[in-house]
Amino acid sequence: MQTDDRTPKNREIERKFLIKRLPEKLKHWPHYPIAQGYLAIEGAGRHVRLRRKGKTASLTFKMGRGAHREEREIKLSPKQFAALWPATTGRRLYKVRHEIPWKNLLIEIDIYRGRHRGLVVAEVEFPDRATCRRFKAPSWFAREVTGEKRYSNVRLANE
Amino acid sequence: MQTDDRTPKNREIERKFLIKRLPEKLKHWPHYPIAQGYLAIEGAGRHVRLRRKGKTASLTFKMGRGAHREEREIKLSPKQFAALWPATTGRRLYKVRHEIPWKNLLIEIDIYRGRHRGLVVAEVEFPDRATCRRFKAPSWFAREVTGEKRYSNVRLANE
Repeated sequence: MQTDDRTPKNREIERKFLIKRLPEKLKHWPHYPIAQGYLAIEGAGRHVRLRRKGKTASLTFKMGRGAHREEREIKLSPKQFAALWPATTGRRLYKVRHEIPWKNLLIEIDIYRGRHRGLVVAEVEFPDRATCRRFKAPSWFAREVTGEKRYSNVRLANE
Repeated sequence: MQTDDRTPKNREIERKFLIKRLPEKLKHWPHYPIAQGYLAIEGAGRHVRLRRKGKTASLTFKMGRGAHREEREIKLSPKQFAALWPATTGRRLYKVRHEIPWKNLLIEIDIYRGRHRGLVVAEVEFPDRATCRRFKAPSWFAREVTGEKRYSNVRLANE
């Protein structure tokens, strides 16, 4: 039975951290390149993003800031992606994502490429608000930067 | 052979008019209901629009204002459309579009429904800038409103 605290469909609950060091054997976990760009950025966290992650492409609508956001995503065919991607010129970023299982959660480590080479950020998505609050970061995490505009992908793509 | 004045791909050249009266036998021409809503509106005419026109659905990126705009459009499957449409709540409009052939051009008459019932607007799209400049409006056209924010669909959808 679904409780009120469970993540409603189309909501994401996540926290973002800088890290002190990369975990060992990073290459052993799944990793893939991500290219993303923004079609329109309205403000207050509302935007439409294109992303190619490995071989799959998607279009994502997001709204809201901080740990709780509305999100709606569709898969795009290669043809659909190719038709829209040129509209993101000057608003793109590139990173390699590593997926590290950690307790019952998944830690995503994003290693930025291009203009933001050197920046590494870890994101953790939670199934509900309670798990989000109770989360104890592993020892190799550094400062939490959830909701900090400076580390938002929208901001990084436009710099 | 394509000349420099021809519309480049992904550009649209169009003008918008109020009308004095509807043309005769309007129902004889193709017409279909349109529902459209906006995912994100950035300003300076840049936005992402969802549209269902008869049985087909599309997502359109537009940028720029007035008679010359960049436009990129993809068709959406019914499933893709259904996943994104809820994100346009409070930013929608409804109209019936009539397509009237006129000389070598097509006049689109939009009869608004819902909150904007009573508003009727005619749009003409041109193959190149010269044809756009030379256009002589038919006698049943009233004032030109190209580029007037008050008649922009983005504005109407958000009122």
